[in-house]
Parts: sequence; structure tokens; C-alpha cells
Amino acid sequence: MKKVAVIMGSDSDWPVVKGACTQLDALDIPYEAHILSAHRTPTQAAEFAKSARERGFGVVICAAGMAAHLAGAFAANTTLPVIGIPMKGGVLDGLDALLATVQMPGGIPVATVALNGAKNAAVLAAQILAVEDEALTRRLEAERRKMAEQIAEKDAKLQEELLKS
Amino acid sequence: MKKVAVIMGSDSDWPVVKGACTQLDALDIPYEAHILSAHRTPTQAAEFAKSARERGFGVVICAAGMAAHLAGAFAANTTLPVIGIPMKGGVLDGLDALLATVQMPGGIPVATVALNGAKNAAVLAAQILAVEDEALTRRLEAERRKMAEQIAEKDAKLQEELLKS
Amino acid sequence: MKKVAVIMGSDSDWPVVKGACTQLDALDIPYEAHILSAHRTPTQAAEFAKSARERGFGVVICAAGMAAHLAGAFAANTTLPVIGIPMKGGVLDGLDALLATVQMPGGIPVATVALNGAKNAAVLAAQILAVEDEALTRRLEAERRKMAEQIAEKDAKLQEELLKS
Amino acid sequence: MKKVAVIMGSDSDWPVVKGACTQLDALDIPYEAHILSAHRTPTQAAEFAKSARERGFGVVICAAGMAAHLAGAFAANTTLPVIGIPMKGGVLDGLDALLATVQMPGGIPVATVALNGAKNAAVLAAQILAVEDEALTRRLEAERRKMAEQIAEKDAKLQEELLKS
Amino acid sequence: MKKVAVIMGSDSDWPVVKGACTQLDALDIPYEAHILSAHRTPTQAAEFAKSARERGFGVVICAAGMAAHLAGAFAANTTLPVIGIPMKGGVLDGLDALLATVQMPGGIPVATVALNGAKNAAVLAAQILAVEDEALTRRLEAERRKMAEQIAEKDAKLQEELLKS
Amino acid sequence: MKKVAVIMGSDSDWPVVKGACTQLDALDIPYEAHILSAHRTPTQAAEFAKSARERGFGVVICAAGMAAHLAGAFAANTTLPVIGIPMKGGVLDGLDALLATVQMPGGIPVATVALNGAKNAAVLAAQILAVEDEALTRRLEAERRKMAEQIAEKDAKLQEELLKS
Amino acid sequence: MKKVAVIMGSDSDWPVVKGACTQLDALDIPYEAHILSAHRTPTQAAEFAKSARERGFGVVICAAGMAAHLAGAFAANTTLPVIGIPMKGGVLDGLDALLATVQMPGGIPVATVALNGAKNAAVLAAQILAVEDEALTRRLEAERRKMAEQIAEKDAKLQEELLKS
Amino acid sequence: MKKVAVIMGSDSDWPVVKGACTQLDALDIPYEAHILSAHRTPTQAAEFAKSARERGFGVVICAAGMAAHLAGAFAANTTLPVIGIPMKGGVLDGLDALLATVQMPGGIPVATVALNGAKNAAVLAAQILAVEDEALTRRLEAERRKMAEQIAEKDAKLQEELLKS
Repeated sequence: MKKVAVIMGSDSDWPVVKGACTQLDALDIPYEAHILSAHRTPTQAAEFAKSARERGFGVVICAAGMAAHLAGAFAANTTLPVIGIPMKGGVLDGLDALLATVQMPGGIPVATVALNGAKNAAVLAAQILAVEDEALTRRLEAERRKMAEQIAEKDAKLQEELLKS
Repeated sequence: MKKVAVIMGSDSDWPVVKGACTQLDALDIPYEAHILSAHRTPTQAAEFAKSARERGFGVVICAAGMAAHLAGAFAANTTLPVIGIPMKGGVLDGLDALLATVQMPGGIPVATVALNGAKNAAVLAAQILAVEDEALTRRLEAERRKMAEQIAEKDAKLQEELLKS
Repeated sequence: MKKVAVIMGSDSDWPVVKGACTQLDALDIPYEAHILSAHRTPTQAAEFAKSARERGFGVVICAAGMAAHLAGAFAANTTLPVIGIPMKGGVLDGLDALLATVQMPGGIPVATVALNGAKNAAVLAAQILAVEDEALTRRLEAERRKMAEQIAEKDAKLQEELLKS
Repeated sequence: MKKVAVIMGSDSDWPVVKGACTQLDALDIPYEAHILSAHRTPTQAAEFAKSARERGFGVVICAAGMAAHLAGAFAANTTLPVIGIPMKGGVLDGLDALLATVQMPGGIPVATVALNGAKNAAVLAAQILAVEDEALTRRLEAERRKMAEQIAEKDAKLQEELLKS
Repeated sequence: MKKVAVIMGSDSDWPVVKGACTQLDALDIPYEAHILSAHRTPTQAAEFAKSARERGFGVVICAAGMAAHLAGAFAANTTLPVIGIPMKGGVLDGLDALLATVQMPGGIPVATVALNGAKNAAVLAAQILAVEDEALTRRLEAERRKMAEQIAEKDAKLQEELLKS
Repeated sequence: MKKVAVIMGSDSDWPVVKGACTQLDALDIPYEAHILSAHRTPTQAAEFAKSARERGFGVVICAAGMAAHLAGAFAANTTLPVIGIPMKGGVLDGLDALLATVQMPGGIPVATVALNGAKNAAVLAAQILAVEDEALTRRLEAERRKMAEQIAEKDAKLQEELLKS
Repeated sequence: MKKVAVIMGSDSDWPVVKGACTQLDALDIPYEAHILSAHRTPTQAAEFAKSARERGFGVVICAAGMAAHLAGAFAANTTLPVIGIPMKGGVLDGLDALLATVQMPGGIPVATVALNGAKNAAVLAAQILAVEDEALTRRLEAERRKMAEQIAEKDAKLQEELLKS
Repeated sequence: MKKVAVIMGSDSDWPVVKGACTQLDALDIPYEAHILSAHRTPTQAAEFAKSARERGFGVVICAAGMAAHLAGAFAANTTLPVIGIPMKGGVLDGLDALLATVQMPGGIPVATVALNGAKNAAVLAAQILAVEDEALTRRLEAERRKMAEQIAEKDAKLQEELLKS
């Protein structure tokens, strides 16, 4: 299976971004995680992006906050699908990062997920890799069923709580 | 090649969404386009989503405005990657549609592109299908080179214009 | 009297949503509370909505945050009045949930109350049921008088505090 | 059947608010429409609200823009359900009117619909009156089916258009 | 001298609103402070406003949060200048209260100060009363000089701190 | 009677600001109108503000857009009440001008009215001058009655229109 | 004198950006103008930035809209001062471009001017070059005086207009 | 070398603004830091600005929050480059300060950096002074390299952490 590259602009993003790695592990998807900055290491970031496909990556996840250019900088240098995680912590609860990630010009898309949405970035990466991978599709569907069951269990608990009161 | 489903919530979205179809045509990617509403035809929308994978779709693009639930409703009913195009025209230049599309809960991602970003939705769909398709990758790379050349041509024109003035 | 359905998208909404149940209890209105997700249990949510009227419900209250589709998903599947409580906690103090709840397309309204406005959702449900119920109208009016008296008492206390200083 | 009161803060709101009356006519619901201002005729507005129930109204719809206090002023003076239509035209595409309408304090709800959502205010009023009115429920359900059919027709037209191109 | 009326919509506003009273005391301006709600005690609020001028008030200060209608409700019922203090605590850091206070329709102004700007509401009230009151003007000017001196002292302290480091 | 100073930052503001002069004329209040810029003529603006009281002004109205510093610059240099009109035309429908006008620091208030609220700035100036002027108070009250009558007339016209249809 | 580089992300920015060139011409400052895209020609943009200082540039101006990364991409690749012009035209009147330009991480500043502020970008570039250039300082001061005179002339015209009416 | 003036509107800004001084020290750039308010000490602020160039300053940094006029007031009174640091703490995470700083009218730019961006204000000041100063340019480039190395070290640490888990 192709690997997922999980890139973050700063080590301070790691506590959130880790959630993407946990999810990739749970779905048995190989990945590499790296710290690379669009502004502090622009050359290294561009080089990573340019060589990503030939190095076996199938999807790139980029997490960045504020004027979040990381995903855009990657997208500019590869035709692999690039998923952007806008990080909270700048202004307006992260609206700066959200708009800087999603409002890409024609021709260079970034697949943007929710603010701090590390788990969903990983699920989206998995869905992309699953387009041609039935086994992974099965694992994704199993996870969906588990989520639905958890909701049902929580509802059952709520009914008990309501009965008691 | 797997097909792309291009779904829009209202026929009034067509003038923008058409841009996605044009781009898919240019990249020689098969697609179907449909009008389906998360609110006015919820059952049909759910059924389309549930059967999409087995009917040969590889990616779904959903365009909707205002309380833009269409992409989310599709994502809830399939594990295929779902790309959301938030449409302008509601409040705050479409910020309502953007947030309603991108701020999905954990486990159910929507790959959100820019407001009215129909062309980029198609490019992203192509990038997803190209992960395991070298020929399509080549076509995407060719398009990138063409974009760069167009910029260079425009810059050359600007230099002429500046020389004259 | 018809029942009120109080639906929340996640058990994490319960501490706020509980306020609606407390208010319904105070007004002696029967209700059921459930956890159902527009995205994680879309089929169950749609089925609940479709059968709500015949199962004796008169009003539905839906609480959800972020890309808050729950109220819209219910409204799409029933002609009962659906009240939406947008939950804080996403981006911009919950503006994402507010817009995703209120900006519904023509034909499918959601009666939206304030962010985290669980108490007011219950009062609105009561007002709806009271349109044809004089006894409930009396209880609502009594509560209004009590609120006015509380303000008067607080003002009296303030006057004492001001006299002392 | 109880009547619906359709109140607007200014005659300049009429071109939009008229849409609520058209919808009420279509559903065969009796109504009165009036211009009353929370700021320019506060006494008359309060008196209308106070006597609305005994004068045979079952629901009140209030449309206002900018610092949209009209719905709140009505809600403060009646326990009938009050539906608020925030009007565009102030600042931020009407966000001022939306927040001034929806962010009501505990105990005094306003059932807020989308910006300029006159049609949906009428549908919501109808849904409220239909809680105890089977015939009206049937008319609402018929309208829903009609909407779904229109979507299907539009999709059919789109398929023709796509075939030709 | 005419009195200032200091009105707040809820006793929870008092910790902030108190700052207005402190400032009025410091400038030796008589005032009354009351809790009155545009929504919970609309009749009492309207009556207070209508009789304010004849009861010796010269200016009214109104503090309210969320759908902050209090200042507007007062302004609708008196031609005295009404100063509005939008309170933080609703959505978007109080942008709801700010817009609901400031965006008044033509003919009924509210003199809006900063969010939680209780001190400035009192200073503005004093400036209004000082238009025809030389002694109060002198006190306002003395306070300005004191503010400038405090800045100079703080700058002097900063210079010491910088020298040491 | 004391005069009103009507200051605007640019001659492009005049079409809106003229509305303040029209209203002052209607209320028979003397005024001067001037173009003065906080940024392009800072010295002249400061000098005007410093001498305004002794030159017979009772209130200052300042209109400015974008980073609207004009009202603040006046307020910093006089203890007369300064009314700020934030002008639309910058970003976010004039939210920049609104916040730059209203969010003044403690001690230096600006009495802010609605965006482009020239008429209300004049009414507020009149209300301030009327605190100690009974004749002006009567004129303000007459205008209020006229506004209420106009609403009544418009409502009567609407009733005729509704009867015909 | 060192040159100014005026870079725009798209030829559609030229009608606005031209204003910067006009201003530079007026101040007799040499410049080059180019179209270069952070996303469509990332390599060329980075190379231009890296070699800018040695090619005789003293300041770089970058204009871009939406997810406006151009200024940031330049700033990442040079230690010359980089001025960013956020372009209107995206979402929220260009708030996306403003935040994407100004919210740079520590160590890599972009000197951001107003939305569409091409003239001010040029003035700022001139001010930077004037730090060590007395003649240019004189030209900047002369322009300031001219601006003040224009305001005075416009005020004189307004006085005439007011006298006539 | 020319000095940098670091001005803040209030001593409460010092904990953030100190970061600018630390950075200037690290780059060996002489500076003075002062507290001066556009609103509380307008005359002193204007005088400082007017004499700044002849007193040996080459750049001015101004930090202010809320209706942040300080940078604009300086820019109005000098042709030196003025850098504005908008301070968080007002409304909308400091959007008020950001817009009040950046949205300057034509002819009077403020070079705006990120919210609370004290470090970047200092770096930008250094970049401006470095235009004609090779030694300072070298120090800036060394700092860039150090930043890149730190990122590389942090990435190395992350690789170790990932290997262990």
C-alpha cells in the first residue's frame, strides 16, 4: 500500500496531529510523520513535495496554523492529493488557518478538513487509498459500524439515566 | 477508470458546477452529474450515496450553499471520498456554506475546496483517481506545466506593456 | 398531550441539552430524549424523523454543533416543527453551528434558537403545543410573571446594596 | 383555524415578506399583515402582541433588519410562538439582524429562520398550526412531495442537456 | 444637575456595570441604577423610559448582552440621549450585543460605546451633562490631565526598568 | 444654542454625511461642516478639536471609513461629546470602521451610531443639546410622533393593497 | 537607488497593482513588475526571491488574493522587507487574503497594507528606501504637504457649496 | 545605525511588546521603548512622531489594541516607516485592532504584522535597516539558518519518538 506523509509546520502541532497517526495505525496504513515549515524550511518542504510520489507516498496530510501555507506549498509541488488540517490558535478560533488552507486558486486544490481535524484527515487519506483497495474499504466500513454501535450504546445509557431520575 | 459523481443541491448551482464537468472532460475522466437535495429528496440522496461504490463511482463531488448539508449527507452514507464545494450566495459571501461543509465531526470527513471551487473539486477528484493511475498522473502533470507556461506568457505580455508606457 | 422529542448528536451535548428536559418537566410536558447522529447513524435518524408524528410526537428539538446537520436532517424527513439548538464549541463561538442550523433552503425550515439555548428550545416547544392547549398557556404565562417578579426582587436587592455603599 | 400575524418593521421589507403571505395563501391559512415598528411605534407593537392570542392569532411572524428587535419585542409581550425573519441589508449580509433575532435570553425564545427566509417562516407557521390539524398536515406533505418531484424533473432535464453536449 | 439612569438587563451585568457608577461617583454626578429587562419586564422598561425625563434624568445608560435590545427599547420610548453598553458573553466575543445595540434604524439612535465599556458610558454621560455645565467640564478636563500624567509616570517606570536590564 | 461640528475625513463621505446636515436643518440646529483628516491633516484636526468648545460647539460629529480614527482623534483632544459615524466601503461592509470607531479605550469615549448612520448622528446630537433645551425637546418629540404616523399610514396602504389582491 | 520588485499572483490583479507602479513612478523610484504565482510557478517564485537582493532589489511588494501565499512565499526565501497587498475578491471582502498575508509565523514577517492597498504598498516601499535617502525623504514630505493642501481645497469647496444652499 | 522606536499604548502591552526588544537586542540594533497613547497623550505622541527622524530613529514600531490608532497617529506625523502590532484582547481575538491598524487610507501606510507579532515587528524593522547594511543582513541570514536547523532538530526528535512507539 502507498504511504501517507503526515507533515506539520511546527512541533507544537504534534499533540493534535498525533491523532492522525493514531487513526492511520488503527486502519493499518503505513505513514511517515515530519516537521517541515513552508516559511522556515521552504526549500526542504518543496523538495519533499516534489519527490513524494516517487518515494511511495499516495497522500500527503499537512497541518498548519495562522497564515497556514504548508498545505498550499505542498500542493504547488506535487500532483498527489494534499489534505490540509487548519490548526486553531491564531485569530478567530483558527478562521485564519481555515481560509488560508481552503481558499486555493484554480488548479491547485487542497482537500481541507475541519479545524484541528487530525482524525478526519487520516480517515480521508484512508478513503482515498481505499478507492482501489477492497480490504481497506472493509476496514473503513467496519469502523463506521462501530461508530453507529457506540451511539446506540450511549443512547441506551441515556435511557437508563432518564429512567432513574 | 472509476467514475466521478457530481451532485448539486439545486439546478441553480449548475452554472458553477458545470466547471467541474468541463475539467473532468479535459482530463478524460468519466462522470455522472445529478441534482439531488439533502433536504428535499433526502431518501434518494441517501440511496445514491449507499450504492455509489458498487455502481462504479470512485469519488463523489457535492455542491451546495447556505446550510450546505449535501456533502455531509453523502459522507454519512458512503466510505468513498466525498469532496464538498461550498457555494457562495448565502450569508457572509458563503461562509455559512463553507463552515457547514468543512466542520464535519470525527470519523466522517468531507474534503472541502474553495467557495465555488468547482474546477478544483474536479482536479482533486482526478488526483485521487490518479493515485493508482499513471496515465492520469501524466495528464495532471501536463496540465500543471501548461499553467506555469501561461503565467510566463502573461508575464511576457506585461513586460511589453510596461515597455510601451 | 403530544410528546416532545429531544435529540442530540452526541452524548457530550447532554450537559447543555439537559436544560431543555428540566424546562419541559417544569411545564409538565411529556418527552423522550435520544442520542442520534446525522452523520454516524443517518438511517436511524431518518427513520425516527419519518415515524415521529405517528408515534405521538408534536415537536422535535435537535441539538448539534459544528457542521450541525441534525436539525436539518430531521426537518427533511418530517413535517413536524423542528427546533434547532446550535451548540457552541466549534469555530467562532459556534457560528458554524448557528449558520448550519438556521440557513435552511426554502420549504424546509428549522426553528433556530440561541447558541446553547436549550431552555428556550423547550419554552418554544411548549409555546407550540400551547397554541391549542389553554392549560399549558396558563402555565407559560405564570412562568412569565415569575420571571418578572424575579427581576423586581433583584432590583430591590440592588437598591439595598447601593444604599449601603 | 387560528390566524397568522405577519408583522414587518418597515414597508421596505414588503417585497421579501410578501413571500410569506403567498405561501400562507397556498396552504389556505388565514393571516393578517401589518407594518409595526419596535422602535418607531413601540406602544402599538406591544399592544398588538399582548392582545394577539385573544384576537385569534396562533402564530406571529416578525421580519426586521439591522438591530432587529421586532420579533424580540413581540416575544416579550406574548406567549404565542414568535417566528423571526432576519432581513439582509444591514451589515455583514444581515448577520446583525440574524444575531439580534436569534440570541434571545432564557425564557423568551424567537424561532428564527434563514436570512430573508419569508417562505420558510410561513411553512414553519403552518407546521405549528398543523400539530393539531390533520388536513393541514396533509397539505404540507403534499407540498413536500411536489418539491421532490420538481427536483426529479430538473435532474431529468439535466440528463438531457448532458446527453446533447 | 440632571441624574443619570444606569439600567442593566440582568444582575449578572452588575460586576461590569458597577464601573459606570464608580466613574459617575468620581465625577460627582447623581444617578440611579436599576435592573430592568426589555424581554422579561417590557412594560416596566417602557414606562421607566417614558417618564425618565420628567423624573429628572438627563441621560440613560443601558447595558445588555446577546440580542441586546434594552438600549433600543429605551431609545424607542424617550428622546433623552440613550447610551448603550454591549456586554461580552454571547457569541463572537459580544459582536451580537454590539450589532444589536449600534445598528439602530433612522430616527432612534443609541450612543454605543465599546464592549463592556461601562467606564466610557459614564464619561460620555458626563460629557453630555457638561455641555451646559462648566464646573463638570473642569472636572472632566482634570481627569484627562490625570490620565496623561499616569502615562508619563508609567513611561518613566519603563525607562528605569530598561536601564536596569 | 451651541453649534454642532460635522467633520468628515474625505469629500467622498459627503453624500452620506449630508444626511446629518439635512436633519440638523430640520431641527433648526446651527452647525458647521468641514473636511479634516486624522491622517492627512492631523495637526489641523487636533487644533479644531482643542478649540471646539470655546468656539461655541456643543457636540462634534465625525464620519470616517476603514481604519476610522477621526472620531477618536477628536475625542482625544476635546471633552465635548464626540459622535462617530462609521462609513461603509472598507472591508466586511464597514466592520473595520465600526470597530475602529467604537472600541475606544477607557476614558475617551466615542458615541458610535450605525454604519452610514448620518441621520441618527444628527438626532443624537439634537438629543444631547435638548437635555437643557425644552423647545428642542418639543421638536424632537414632534418628529417622533410624525414617524409613528408615517408607519400608520404605510400600514393603512398595505391593508388596501391586501384587500385588492 | 535600489529597485522595488512588484509581484502579482495573477494578471487579473494588474488593474489594482498598477496603482503601486504609478506611485513609484511619481516618486521616481525604479521598479520591475512581474507575474509569478506561489502555487502555479512555485520554483520560479522561490528563485526570484532568493536572488532578489543580489539583483539590486531593496524591497519586494507582493499582491495576491484568496489563500494569499505569495508574500509569505517570498518572505520565506529572502531577508529583504516584503510588503503584502491582500486583494479583495475572495470571501468576506478579502478577509481571507488579509489573514493569509498578515498572520505570518515568528521570524518571517510580511509588512501588510490595506486590502487592495497598492498605492500604500508603494509609499511604504518608498519610506523604507528613504531611511537612508534624504532626497527621497524630501519627495515623500512634499507629497504629504500636497495631500494636506488638497484636503484644505476640498474643504473650501464644501464651504462654498454650503453657503449656496 | 539608526535607532528603532518601540512605542506601546499602555503598559499592559509590555509583556508582549518586550518580545520586540529582545529580538532587537539579539540583532544588536539600538532602540528606545516608550509608553505613549494616541488617545490619552495625543500631543506627546504627535510630537514624538514629528521629531523622530531628526532624533535618529529609522523605524517606528507601534503596538496597540482595540480601536488601535497609535500606529496610524504616528504614521500621520512622520514619513518614517511605521510598523503596527495589533494587540489581542479586544473583540474577535483582536480583529478590531488588526483592522484599525491595517486599513489605512491612501498615502499613509502602516506596515502591519500579525496579532501580538512583536518578534516579527522587530525582524521587519531589522530587514528595513538592513537594506543598506550588509552586516545586519548577514545577522538576519544567520538567524534564518538557525531557524531551519531548529526545525531539522525537532524533526529528528520526532523520528526518535516515533521509533520508540
